[in-house]
Amino acid sequence: MLLAALRAGPASRAALASRTGLTRATVASLLDPLVRVGVLVEETAAPAGPGRPARPVGFGPRSPVAVGVSIEVDAVVAGASGLDGVSAGRRRVPRDHRALTAEAIYAGAAQVAADLAAELGRPVLGTGLALPALLSGTPDDTVVVRAPNLPALNGTRPTLSPAPAPTPRRTARSLTPGEPTRRSPGRVLVGNEATFGALAHLDVAPDLVYVSADVGIGGGLVVDGRVLRGTRGFAGEIGHVVVEPDGPACGCGGRGCVEQFAGRDALLATSGCADLAALRRALERGEPSAVEAVRRAGTALGVGLSSVVNVVDLPVVVLGGLFAELVPHLLPAVEAELATRCMGHPPERVVASRHGDAATVRGAAEAVLAEVLADPDRLLELP
Amino acid sequence: MLLAALRAGPASRAALASRTGLTRATVASLLDPLVRVGVLVEETAAPAGPGRPARPVGFGPRSPVAVGVSIEVDAVVAGASGLDGVSAGRRRVPRDHRALTAEAIYAGAAQVAADLAAELGRPVLGTGLALPALLSGTPDDTVVVRAPNLPALNGTRPTLSPAPAPTPRRTARSLTPGEPTRRSPGRVLVGNEATFGALAHLDVAPDLVYVSADVGIGGGLVVDGRVLRGTRGFAGEIGHVVVEPDGPACGCGGRGCVEQFAGRDALLATSGCADLAALRRALERGEPSAVEAVRRAGTALGVGLSSVVNVVDLPVVVLGGLFAELVPHLLPAVEAELATRCMGHPPERVVASRHGDAATVRGAAEAVLAEVLADPDRLLELP
Repeated sequence: MLLAALRAGPASRAALASRTGLTRATVASLLDPLVRVGVLVEETAAPAGPGRPARPVGFGPRSPVAVGVSIEVDAVVAGASGLDGVSAGRRRVPRDHRALTAEAIYAGAAQVAADLAAELGRPVLGTGLALPALLSGTPDDTVVVRAPNLPALNGTRPTLSPAPAPTPRRTARSLTPGEPTRRSPGRVLVGNEATFGALAHLDVAPDLVYVSADVGIGGGLVVDGRVLRGTRGFAGEIGHVVVEPDGPACGCGGRGCVEQFAGRDALLATSGCADLAALRRALERGEPSAVEAVRRAGTALGVGLSSVVNVVDLPVVVLGGLFAELVPHLLPAVEAELATRCMGHPPERVVASRHGDAATVRGAAEAVLAEVLADPDRLLELP
Repeated sequence: MLLAALRAGPASRAALASRTGLTRATVASLLDPLVRVGVLVEETAAPAGPGRPARPVGFGPRSPVAVGVSIEVDAVVAGASGLDGVSAGRRRVPRDHRALTAEAIYAGAAQVAADLAAELGRPVLGTGLALPALLSGTPDDTVVVRAPNLPALNGTRPTLSPAPAPTPRRTARSLTPGEPTRRSPGRVLVGNEATFGALAHLDVAPDLVYVSADVGIGGGLVVDGRVLRGTRGFAGEIGHVVVEPDGPACGCGGRGCVEQFAGRDALLATSGCADLAALRRALERGEPSAVEAVRRAGTALGVGLSSVVNVVDLPVVVLGGLFAELVPHLLPAVEAELATRCMGHPPERVVASRHGDAATVRGAAEAVLAEVLADPDRLLELP
């Protein structure tokens, strides 16, 4: 509770006592051990008036981070967040996972996460590992049920260790020469990419639909501040809501799913662009074929979201990943379908994610931070 | 808790103490006042062995009931349930509500509920009022947002009082001559018909999708034993999941909703039957046009349910209302779509509701009973 209160910014012990309703003695007893180990630092403030100056306490610049790492179809993305939820660094490494074995995919992700942690030189609380897949089990004991776009992962147990030997990095200037750059990923929490993406938007609204496009389309429902997981953890597959029952065959086994009209491959095919860079240029130039392709994707997405909203009645839609950058061209068609098809109650807002394609790794890191904030004693046991 | 334990059947004080973990003294102090007012009765049992005989306590035959009343498009259905959840009586009064004002609709429903209560001659704990409508507000302060098939109700506040003077009924034999038959509906809880219908199936599974057809199609999602209401109470509109974006115009303002392919009017139109009785006869004779019409409805319903399951991941589907009686002809098509389109996780079971078209009124009565079971002191204050 105390650490959660500090996420709003540094505060004096008195202010924290007032924010949390704890006594100043309790606040001190909880803060002081964290100041001693360097997780929190006392700022040297100018005397704030008569008497003893209030010295704000905040998260230290070398305080621990949580890492999120996302295995996308053609890239590994890693990002680190401090206890305050602020991004501490991020990297994206292009890699066509479709040509790799599961072992190579996981080892590569582990390396990217380890390199990022080494570069930051801050203790790692744990790592959230995001996959474009249906998963079963628990976040710390997971099996991949089905990864439609990366079938090599089907049936595997995701892991970030053991990883190959570390790559020494010139940029890791904070490290003593000779110190190994490989950092333990700490506790690893595995989750679906879009479920983590939804988690990154809890500050937008307590109830929302998150839908995000990369090669596939994923989604997550947030109800009352919590991600709706479904009985078997498979909820949120908005990419596989049916738009045209007899439409194109989908990797899921069905036909005419949202993904077949609004996923990246569909967008490139209908716009005639070779890749995303070409699509972006065509949209900037206002080329009618590109604009029309995105509009049609928006219509299909809007039809699918109407079905979703009619079933779960959530008032906010957040468009993430590729959808976020396409919002200027996508939104009118999405909103038109929602306005017509949502039985008397279209969502109040449809917004672009602020986090773009970083939402997944932010959410994956947040999942780790949420555990730590609920049990701050773990911060005292860091190496 | 004690009354909930008695729902399984009469039990001795000792057995109840053992079932609930309460002391026998506590059990006695909770039961005895309810025995005194006649809500519970002690059965005269034969001595069950040496020593003092165990005398089972159970709900009395004249103990109070909760009433559920459902305003359908062309009928009023009322049903009463005892505290044990067992049906105490039910009636269905055909009435074409499309030709009536809101005032007449509510007054008629109040009369049917009052007549049923008078006939039973048991105290009424309260009445659940089910409407085929989107509702806003709370169960005891409700406004109709939209009733697509009964627009006269739009914008009204549902009420069961004041009702017109009671109709004396010959069948009310338990009543003293001259005693007014009008009974107060007690506390009135208003809800969507399909939400109440879902509530009637909590004993089937803690997580399920309920979808029910009458003129319209309604639905409800049960997650962890609770009906998912949605932020504005509009969740569960499975009838308005989109099946064909360019399909027939729907009363909701959209096009190609499940209701346009699998609702009662669609079934009659595609089968060429004049009414449900004709459809039933045609199905009994195995007439290909009728069989094919139901199969096509099942395909559309299966497509819509696939979208629902991909979004919320619930393992059981309960088919209610008209769907329940059509299950032999409907189920293969529904299951075929779910098996193909649910990404790796079709529901484990698709079953017909045991309650048929009584599910709504049972659930409406259950909503009242749930309040009473949570606060049994209300039973001591009955007139």
